[in-house]
Amino acid sequence: MSTTSPQRITLIGLGTIGMSMAALHLARENTIVDVFDTRPDFEKYLIETLPTFLGRLHVHTSLESACASATIVQEQGPEKVTFKQSLWKQVESITPSSAHLWTSTSGIAASIQQSEMRDKTRLLVVHPFNPPHIMPLLEIVPSPETSPERVEFAREYFSMAGSKHRPVVIQKEIPGFVGNRLAFALLREACYLVQEDVVNAKDLDTILLASLGPRWAGNGVFESYQQGGGEGGIQAFLEKLGSTMQLVWDDLGKVNVLGGKETEWKDKVISQVNETYKPLTKNQILEKEARLKELVEVQTKRYTQGAEL
Amino acid sequence: MSTTSPQRITLIGLGTIGMSMAALHLARENTIVDVFDTRPDFEKYLIETLPTFLGRLHVHTSLESACASATIVQEQGPEKVTFKQSLWKQVESITPSSAHLWTSTSGIAASIQQSEMRDKTRLLVVHPFNPPHIMPLLEIVPSPETSPERVEFAREYFSMAGSKHRPVVIQKEIPGFVGNRLAFALLREACYLVQEDVVNAKDLDTILLASLGPRWAGNGVFESYQQGGGEGGIQAFLEKLGSTMQLVWDDLGKVNVLGGKETEWKDKVISQVNETYKPLTKNQILEKEARLKELVEVQTKRYTQGAEL
Repeated sequence: MSTTSPQRITLIGLGTIGMSMAALHLARENTIVDVFDTRPDFEKYLIETLPTFLGRLHVHTSLESACASATIVQEQGPEKVTFKQSLWKQVESITPSSAHLWTSTSGIAASIQQSEMRDKTRLLVVHPFNPPHIMPLLEIVPSPETSPERVEFAREYFSMAGSKHRPVVIQKEIPGFVGNRLAFALLREACYLVQEDVVNAKDLDTILLASLGPRWAGNGVFESYQQGGGEGGIQAFLEKLGSTMQLVWDDLGKVNVLGGKETEWKDKVISQVNETYKPLTKNQILEKEARLKELVEVQTKRYTQGAEL
Repeated sequence: MSTTSPQRITLIGLGTIGMSMAALHLARENTIVDVFDTRPDFEKYLIETLPTFLGRLHVHTSLESACASATIVQEQGPEKVTFKQSLWKQVESITPSSAHLWTSTSGIAASIQQSEMRDKTRLLVVHPFNPPHIMPLLEIVPSPETSPERVEFAREYFSMAGSKHRPVVIQKEIPGFVGNRLAFALLREACYLVQEDVVNAKDLDTILLASLGPRWAGNGVFESYQQGGGEGGIQAFLEKLGSTMQLVWDDLGKVNVLGGKETEWKDKVISQVNETYKPLTKNQILEKEARLKELVEVQTKRYTQGAEL
């Protein structure tokens, strides 16, 4: 079945990610969305949040009825290995064999989740980035058993005309996939610099906002250094900055989030962050989201070349 | 002398950073800028680039005359230890003793540069971020000997009303300061992921642009995880994501830029980056700069709260 055909999507788990995925799928006119969650109040919440889609949105109290007619089943339940393994075993037995099976997990690879499935070619990760209704990224991460056709179907589905998403296929399963690995690499050094009193948490955030944030919102990291190297590109950059870079790499902080002495940074970071960032009001959250949306929109904007400078 | 008093700034070295600093200082109405460079064509280039400021911009062919009346001397010469050490020794002997001495270095700490100076309280790092005419960040990095008054003078000078810069004082000298340490931590993992064929260089850049770039252009890294943890803030986030985070931290790539086998990623990264990013035309560069400028402007924008969503 083509990605442009009408789809019937079952969503399992209606938290933040699930609600966002419901809105995303329903925004396409030829979809029907079946939702299933075990929380007692989810139907009320859903109807309040997505009232304009009633008629194409069906609420189920049994997993069987939710999955019975699916062309796609997408799961965003608890991040527990045993939950996901037994869920997929059950879903496989109650879903048409052609249906695509997607998990929104941020941490449990498809190859682990599929262990109790008979047909391991159907499951893959579709990992959104927070907040999913604004962030364009979707990391599509197949297991070694996932069929290439199913990978391509997911990529195409999220690339369709009018989609604001930018799906990227990750070629190998790896903890944290790619986005979170890059984020956690930077976070580790950020925690180390606060621990060592090089800067406090607030100043570190100011530094990121005033330099790398806008840089990487405008250019990728490789693209930036390709430009930074002038005519010689990234090769010239690596030659010129190589010794400083190696000095920094050898010296990067090795703080840990689990363990003994190496976790002593945590109290300092947590108290500085709590001191700096108080809970946001509803209006402040909306303002933050409007800003983020605008930052993403700037990325796709066409400029009258050279007009402004 | 107060930061709001008229200043006479000597700029030593007129490359990209120096030109940008000249424009920055001249944009203040009560400044005179003396420039010195040993390149034969620099005067012609300067007069073509900054013609509107002639009258307040003086070109010197001797370091002595360039420094004779300075209230601030700012250096952006070659990144060579011996050059900087002997320059400051000389500058110290030809400059009024009240003058502030700033270096734009990205890698050589003030405590190393000042080794041949008699008065080590005068020198500090003022490190801009590329491209300096758009990026708000200035890292102010004193040596342990720099006087607090001189640190505060520099911070105030770049914080003045109308300044688009955001100076941050780094409390301890450390290789790469803060901005480049964070960038290099992420770059190292990016190179590793390309080496391991998890993604290619182009897809890695797409991932960064579609997620972390806009996130960190809108929020700092600590602020993001404070929000990401919901009511429990960053503490709840660290508890919830701690095991995935530790798994990633234990698994981060240890590629090196100098050395033997550990540099094998370089050919792959360089060739993929060269394949993806061809040299930019003048118009494309201007378009990129317009985008970057707009991303920075979005950061300071006030929204009609909640109006858009």
